[in-house]
Amino acid sequence: MSFVTPIEPEAASPAVRAVYDDIKATRKTDRINNFWKVLASDPPTLKRIWNAVKEVMAPGALDPLTKELIYIAVSVTNNCEYCIHSHVAGATGKGMTPEMYRELMTVVALANETNRLSNGYRIEVDPQFMQPFEPK
Amino acid sequence: MSFVTPIEPEAASPAVRAVYDDIKATRKTDRINNFWKVLASDPPTLKRIWNAVKEVMAPGALDPLTKELIYIAVSVTNNCEYCIHSHVAGATGKGMTPEMYRELMTVVALANETNRLSNGYRIEVDPQFMQPFEPK
Amino acid sequence: MSFVTPIEPEAASPAVRAVYDDIKATRKTDRINNFWKVLASDPPTLKRIWNAVKEVMAPGALDPLTKELIYIAVSVTNNCEYCIHSHVAGATGKGMTPEMYRELMTVVALANETNRLSNGYRIEVDPQFMQPFEPK
Amino acid sequence: MSFVTPIEPEAASPAVRAVYDDIKATRKTDRINNFWKVLASDPPTLKRIWNAVKEVMAPGALDPLTKELIYIAVSVTNNCEYCIHSHVAGATGKGMTPEMYRELMTVVALANETNRLSNGYRIEVDPQFMQPFEPK
Amino acid sequence: MSFVTPIEPEAASPAVRAVYDDIKATRKTDRINNFWKVLASDPPTLKRIWNAVKEVMAPGALDPLTKELIYIAVSVTNNCEYCIHSHVAGATGKGMTPEMYRELMTVVALANETNRLSNGYRIEVDPQFMQPFEPK
Amino acid sequence: MSFVTPIEPEAASPAVRAVYDDIKATRKTDRINNFWKVLASDPPTLKRIWNAVKEVMAPGALDPLTKELIYIAVSVTNNCEYCIHSHVAGATGKGMTPEMYRELMTVVALANETNRLSNGYRIEVDPQFMQPFEPK
Repeated sequence: MSFVTPIEPEAASPAVRAVYDDIKATRKTDRINNFWKVLASDPPTLKRIWNAVKEVMAPGALDPLTKELIYIAVSVTNNCEYCIHSHVAGATGKGMTPEMYRELMTVVALANETNRLSNGYRIEVDPQFMQPFEPK
Repeated sequence: MSFVTPIEPEAASPAVRAVYDDIKATRKTDRINNFWKVLASDPPTLKRIWNAVKEVMAPGALDPLTKELIYIAVSVTNNCEYCIHSHVAGATGKGMTPEMYRELMTVVALANETNRLSNGYRIEVDPQFMQPFEPK
Repeated sequence: MSFVTPIEPEAASPAVRAVYDDIKATRKTDRINNFWKVLASDPPTLKRIWNAVKEVMAPGALDPLTKELIYIAVSVTNNCEYCIHSHVAGATGKGMTPEMYRELMTVVALANETNRLSNGYRIEVDPQFMQPFEPK
Repeated sequence: MSFVTPIEPEAASPAVRAVYDDIKATRKTDRINNFWKVLASDPPTLKRIWNAVKEVMAPGALDPLTKELIYIAVSVTNNCEYCIHSHVAGATGKGMTPEMYRELMTVVALANETNRLSNGYRIEVDPQFMQPFEPK
Repeated sequence: MSFVTPIEPEAASPAVRAVYDDIKATRKTDRINNFWKVLASDPPTLKRIWNAVKEVMAPGALDPLTKELIYIAVSVTNNCEYCIHSHVAGATGKGMTPEMYRELMTVVALANETNRLSNGYRIEVDPQFMQPFEPK
Repeated sequence: MSFVTPIEPEAASPAVRAVYDDIKATRKTDRINNFWKVLASDPPTLKRIWNAVKEVMAPGALDPLTKELIYIAVSVTNNCEYCIHSHVAGATGKGMTPEMYRELMTVVALANETNRLSNGYRIEVDPQFMQPFEPK
């Protein structure tokens, strides 16, 4: 049960409809997901978050599928049910195969394991890792 | 301060040395990181975790660099200092550019943000996302 | 499905009933929430946690509504479904408007985002922030 | 050690300087924190995150101090050292007294405790809490 | 809804069946849990994770019940519903009484509380705690 | 750097001194840890948290060492540096051997791993696990 009723496109205000239209055009789809329909109860936030997603998830140095895999990795670590489902769907639409999904799961799980070995043993960072990572 | 003294290669038992040698051969390096030197205080765990890392991080449906990016995404979400440093180094060695790193940061941060919008609004999973993702 | 059957007021032992009565008197309500009915399976813990909630959530330097907003912020970050629902109800009863709830969501989400940018870039704390915060 | 060298105002590009100037004007300060100086290595992200912070943290239905308290609550739950220090400083500048800080700590800690009691007992959400929270 | 259809023993490949048989023999049961039936969609991972569980959860310096309690403590902290249910069942099978379960809940909850007091006050580690914990 | 200056016993108010004395008597030690010295800046919280620790960590259905191991498991999962150090010291004082510590680390790490496999695959809880766990 969401706290707010999702706003369907036909009931949307012009400001919300403009975002919905941009989502549809950018993603080449006719469907608006519940995430956006719920955020639509707060139009400035809907607009700001959509613009952030559009900017961050666009092709760049990392391709869109890789970005979806990273999104899933975070969502699985945090156990966000909605986000896992929506980004697994998004990644599948961008070409994630079942084999890629399975490998993703193993990496996420292993990282969560070794994170705790590092925490628990209080392992010191090797001096050679302490180097600036300069932008170019 | 780590709870246990890292075990240097020259002080390693034969069982530990065998793992160190496999790490060096697999990674084509002469250096053993503190993570392994500390785990070496527990040889069966050293062996099990190394074999898991070797299996999981090997090239497969996902390439090794993508796997490192996923590892970093988890480690940043959990704020594991050691793991962030060691896997940023690992990813850099596999070709991560500063631009890729910056995009990675933005995706991880955004996913952590939208995870909480989904949690807080209790957004319901869209029915079309509730589909089995069958292996083939 | 809770692991233990909630204990209804009419089935409560005297020790549990005393806590229930204090909850009702303090909150000016006739209703006991599932949280307390389940904790009632462990009467000393019921009493200790209720006394902690009563002490911590009482008006002080922070007003009760602000305290509820903080409670929600933590619960959304941790994704505790029960706690989100019960504290959204609690905050609403103390005057949280839909607009306050929406702003709360945006702050919580943004903080989760910038927490990860800080983690991932390993940003050093500015020297001017490293000052004792003395009680007076 | 941050992965990237903070960019000082005098070395900033025009795009970065424009954000720095807006931060100074909005916050009525001459100081740019490390968070922004490090993000400046990625100018579009610097601009996007600053605009988000400016929009989200502005006075609204919640006052700026309350928003800082919420920010701290999230940062303490996630244990983000940088964010705790910078937002404790920010809250102090907006009027947080030592007594408010101490009460904030107790609420955050208690919420983290009861979140786990709810998780561990798998407490079911009371039906009366399952109500839409309609925006008005 | 799991993303993959659980693989029942009668439909299992020889590699999967070998793991199932080892689970049954090790745990002296005829039942294979959903966790394993779902992992069976990725046979090498099924085998690796089962072998890890078998090695880590075996009697050693810590008895199997204590290990189950620790498993539950982690799962409650992370709010992993599946893991809480399966390990509460596992612990019960190994002798966890309702009283032990209740005490476990109080320790987990309290640790989550004091973790945040330590985070929020930025408490410095006492020098006497900074000592190597040497294996013998 | 802690936000507040630890309060040494000789500078303590009578209310704080009473708690310090109870800590010393209960733990049979002359030393007060930084955690308590910092909480002493908020005497009612010092008293409440100490009484909670005293009640929860006392021998019961679980022995004190097992409770310390559970405390460490939570603290490692959350990566609370102070808590890991202080409870490793506490557990060592109660008889934790290096071998027990190493096994504890492996269980905590493995649980964090399988928690994410369960999250990521959205594994459904087996019906036989959905049973009330009645207190007796």
